[in-house]
Order: sequence, then structure tokens, then C-alpha cells
Amino acid sequence: MRLGILGSISWRTPPRHYGAWETVVHNLTEGLVARGHDVTLFATQDSVTAAKLHAVCPRPYSEDPDLDPNVMVPLHISEAMEMAGEFDLLHNHLDFMPLTYSGLIETPVLTTIHGFSSEKIKAIYYKYASNPYVSISDSDRDPRLNYVATVHNGIDLSEFTFRANPAGDYLLYLGRFHPEKGVHLAVQVARQVGLPLVISGIHQDLEYWQNEVEPFVDGQQVRFVGPSDREERDALMGNALACLHLVTRPERFGLTIVESLACGTPVIAMDLGSPREILGHGISGFLVSSVEEAVEAVRSVHTLDRGDCRRCVEERFTVDHMVEGYLRVYERLLVGG
Amino acid sequence: MRLGILGSISWRTPPRHYGAWETVVHNLTEGLVARGHDVTLFATQDSVTAAKLHAVCPRPYSEDPDLDPNVMVPLHISEAMEMAGEFDLLHNHLDFMPLTYSGLIETPVLTTIHGFSSEKIKAIYYKYASNPYVSISDSDRDPRLNYVATVHNGIDLSEFTFRANPAGDYLLYLGRFHPEKGVHLAVQVARQVGLPLVISGIHQDLEYWQNEVEPFVDGQQVRFVGPSDREERDALMGNALACLHLVTRPERFGLTIVESLACGTPVIAMDLGSPREILGHGISGFLVSSVEEAVEAVRSVHTLDRGDCRRCVEERFTVDHMVEGYLRVYERLLVGG
Repeated sequence: MRLGILGSISWRTPPRHYGAWETVVHNLTEGLVARGHDVTLFATQDSVTAAKLHAVCPRPYSEDPDLDPNVMVPLHISEAMEMAGEFDLLHNHLDFMPLTYSGLIETPVLTTIHGFSSEKIKAIYYKYASNPYVSISDSDRDPRLNYVATVHNGIDLSEFTFRANPAGDYLLYLGRFHPEKGVHLAVQVARQVGLPLVISGIHQDLEYWQNEVEPFVDGQQVRFVGPSDREERDALMGNALACLHLVTRPERFGLTIVESLACGTPVIAMDLGSPREILGHGISGFLVSSVEEAVEAVRSVHTLDRGDCRRCVEERFTVDHMVEGYLRVYERLLVGG
Repeated sequence: MRLGILGSISWRTPPRHYGAWETVVHNLTEGLVARGHDVTLFATQDSVTAAKLHAVCPRPYSEDPDLDPNVMVPLHISEAMEMAGEFDLLHNHLDFMPLTYSGLIETPVLTTIHGFSSEKIKAIYYKYASNPYVSISDSDRDPRLNYVATVHNGIDLSEFTFRANPAGDYLLYLGRFHPEKGVHLAVQVARQVGLPLVISGIHQDLEYWQNEVEPFVDGQQVRFVGPSDREERDALMGNALACLHLVTRPERFGLTIVESLACGTPVIAMDLGSPREILGHGISGFLVSSVEEAVEAVRSVHTLDRGDCRRCVEERFTVDHMVEGYLRVYERLLVGG
């Protein structure tokens, strides 16, 4: 199949530190190439891929304030749209803006919705409601759109070391720092249960961080270690007693949940949105509905088998599972089209 | 001719108070309809036009913070692009983003560049350098682009009352408040020459206003009267001794210069960019290069004939001149295409 994959240019593909969309696009692209497909990846110029890379943005705009996303994003999209005739299918991982070009080209445009960042963007989704969409969890769906499948995100297991016996005695929060990710709730749980909390990730809402999290960072009970690259993340996750994923709004997928499980580390997640599609409650972690329940869950985490956590990922959330899921969608669309 | 006019949705067309792009689009659209052309105007839903109005944005996004321009602008553009097959020509007045769709449609897209808001946006202009462009002054051109003409902006003379004898004894600044518009220089000139300055317009850089202008607003020497609607602007301009247009970066056109002249009011303009294409130095105003020269010019303004100011507009800057200029461009493009 001749496939165009339209990725984000916010971060490199694969990302250096943080970037869930770029991670998924990387895993999918490399998996498709490995299966012999003719893939063109639209991403930043510094991206690393076995596919043909087509780039107009030299670096991630989130890493270079001289790059204006209001200019670079439409320029980037225009390249994929103008080359669309070379592809059997264009797979959009770049949210709503590419949809506004999709009515002008013949090539079918499949869009994976990596999450609705606001209600306002739905005005564009609704105009293009009959376009084909993939959801990344059954829970993150808008009933007015034409979903053709749910394809869960998959990870590259070789990047995550299974550790049967974690070296650390800490809890972990890893991700971006935003109120909807519940970093402040992770702090509360760690303090109540009397275990250290390690925090790693990137800033997204500095006021939130300064008011709700930073006052508790003391280097002992609550330790902030900055962003993590691949190796650091593997070690941080694998040596934790549990990862805390106490979101305050419905989670769309939760890539770090799967990454943690791959290391053998159970996850304690707020039962909002997708976590119940991923976690086996009482097997690979616990679904909770309050800080109090999360504290209880931490106290029970030693009852879980870390091997079961890893197996859960091996059986359902690998790159192979994801790539095969998307190939089934592509084939169905191309036969139908 | 079947024409699509793609306007801005920042303000209503025509604007209620401020909006040079929307004013020009309004004047052009109504002039084309009056000549019997089949015109579709893409603008806000509350716009007022004799053309067919096609709108997806209910109100100007600059008047309603609930409307996200990052969503509304691409949605708005997509409508014009998807309907382009109905037009002989699509005339873009919406800057760089529509260019990124122009390679996907058959209909020629003519773009009037109402000013380069930053160097960064030129990355998109350069990709589409061979598209046809119109400049609004000979001075506001980038040598790498394919200009087919300069068409000066034109105004509706019936909106501006000629006053041979102004009732006021004040100087006027009318426009947006931004350092590049030199409102602070107008204050200096008025203070040095000992005449009142009336300031009317909209805020664009509040810090600049608060630091550089507001401290001098005393209700006597310097009077701030807020934004002006059409009638207020006509009275403010027509009763002024002179308008001050002391820009600090090259002016692209300077619609308020022409509006002031139409009222018979001379303009004292910094000799940067387009003013020398509009003003007759020593006839309809003065071109200056410093605050000191502007002060001298104010002292000489009584030597100018206000009738000459009006005549300058009648002879070169009416809606008819602009519409005929654009029709010549349209005809040339369609014959050539």
C-alpha cells in the first residue's frame, strides 16, 4: 500500500522526551514499513524514520520559539495534501485542521482522533462528520462522527524493560503538568500513604505547577527530576512501586499506563474515560474514584503480580496489535472506496 | 464575471468601528455588484452586502472571545475553497493561510497582500511565489513574489463630508494604538506646537498605550474619545486642522490618510513606505522625517487648500478607481489563464 502519514510537528518523531501523538505515529510508521508498505511520513526535518521523510519544518516548533506554528502547521499540511495523489490513503494524526483540506483532494483521508482538545474544535469535526475516523479508545468518541474502528495505541516492547523486583520504593507521576492530569492528586496520595513521589515530565500550565505542585516538592517526599528521555523513563517506570494516573477529566487513552505496565509496574488510575479499557482492576492495577481509594490501592499494590502487568501489554498493546488494527481499517476503506 | 471574495472574519464587513481590510473588501464587493458581476462574499454572518453572503462564522471573532480564530478561520477558508468551482476567480483578502489550499483547486486564486504582519509568514508566500499577487502600494512589495499590479485602496466618497472650514482647532490621530503607528509621536508634536490632540481608535498594544500615550491624556491638551463609528469619524476628521500619521515602520497603504483627505483635512505623514504615493507634499499635506519637521509642518498647514485634499481623492482613490483597477487584473488573469 502507498500510505501518507501526516504527523505532528510539535515534537520530533519519535519525540526526544515527551509527545504521545508523535510516539504513536512513530510506532505505526515503522511498523508499516517493516511490513513492506510504501510509507511517506510528514513530520519535522529532524525526525528519524525508515519511511520516506517529507519535511518543511526544520525542527519541532515546541523546541524553537522562532518557528511560528500558525505558519508552519498549514505549510506542513499543504505538502501532504498536494502530494496526496501519490498515496492510496492519507492517514491524518494532526487533529482538525487537515480536515478542512480533505474535501479538495481525491485520496481518502483517515483521521485518528488523539483527543478533543476543546469543544470548540468540534465545529470542524462536525462539518466533516462523514469522513472516516478512528478512536483510540471506545470511551473517547463523539456520537456525531463516522467512526470506522477503535485502534488502541501500541508500544514498542523492546523499549521497556520488565523488572520483576523494582529497585525503588517510590510512586511515580510521569507526563505533562496540567490540572487535568491530576499531578496535585498524586502528591496528596503520596503524602497520605507516606511514600516518596517522583515527578517527571514537561510543563504545560506553569501557574498550576507553581500553585498546586511545586510547594510540595521538597526533594524527599516529593522529588522533581525534570523530563525523561527513553532510558530514564524506562528506569523510572520500572523501579517504581506503582504509577499514579489520577486524571480529573476523562482520559482519551493514556499511553503512560501501557508503558508502565510494560515495565511490570501496576497503575492506579482514576476511573474516568479509557483506563477501564486498558487496566485489569485487581490484576494490572486499580481503578479508583477518589484520593482515598487511591491511598487504599497503593497499600494493596504488593498483592499484584508484576508479570501480569507485562502480559497485559504483550497480549493487547504492542506495535503489532496497533499496526494490524490500522491495516484492517485501511483495507476496509480502500475496498469500500 | 462569477467572483468569490474571501474576506476576513476578524471584524464585520463593513466594520462597525475599525477594520481596514474589511473596509476595502466591502468597497470592492459592493462596487463589483453595482457593475453587475455575480459576487459571493465570504465574511461574518452579520455582514451587510448586496452580494451573496456565505458565512460560517456568526460574528466577528474579535468581538466575541468565545469564537476561536484557530478554528473559525480554517473553517471559513474551507467553504470558499470547496465552492471555488462556482467562480471564475477567487480573490483572497485573508493573508497567507488560503494560499496553502490554492494548489488543490482549479480556480485561479488572486491574493491582495494587505501587509506582511511578520517576516515569518513569508515562508508560505515564498512557497506560492508564482501565484498572482496585488500590492496595495508600490512600496509594500517583496521582490520574490509574482505581482500582477498595484491597486490602491479606494473609499466611498459619500461617507466623507468635505468641510472647507473645519470647526475644530485640533490635530487628530485616528487608528489602532500600536508603537508602529506612532501615537506617541503625535502626542509629542501636539505638545510642542501647543495644539490639542484628539485620539480615536482601538487598542492593540495595551502596554504601549499605558506607558507611552495614556500618561499624557489630560482631557485638554490630549483628549481620548474612544473608537469612532462612521459618522463620528467623519465629524472628527472633517473638523480637524490636520491628521497626524507618524508611523515608525513603512506604511503599507494608510487608509486613514485617504479618508482624511476626502474630508478636506491635510495629513502630516512620516515619509516611510506608501505615504509618498498618496500625499502631494505641500499640496494635500506634508511628508516629514522627524518630530521637528512634523511640528514645522503643523505650523504651515494653513497654507494648504483643503479643496486640493478632496480633489486628490476624487481623482485617484475612489471605490471606482479601485474596482476598475481590480477588474483590469481579473480580466488579464482570466484571458491569460
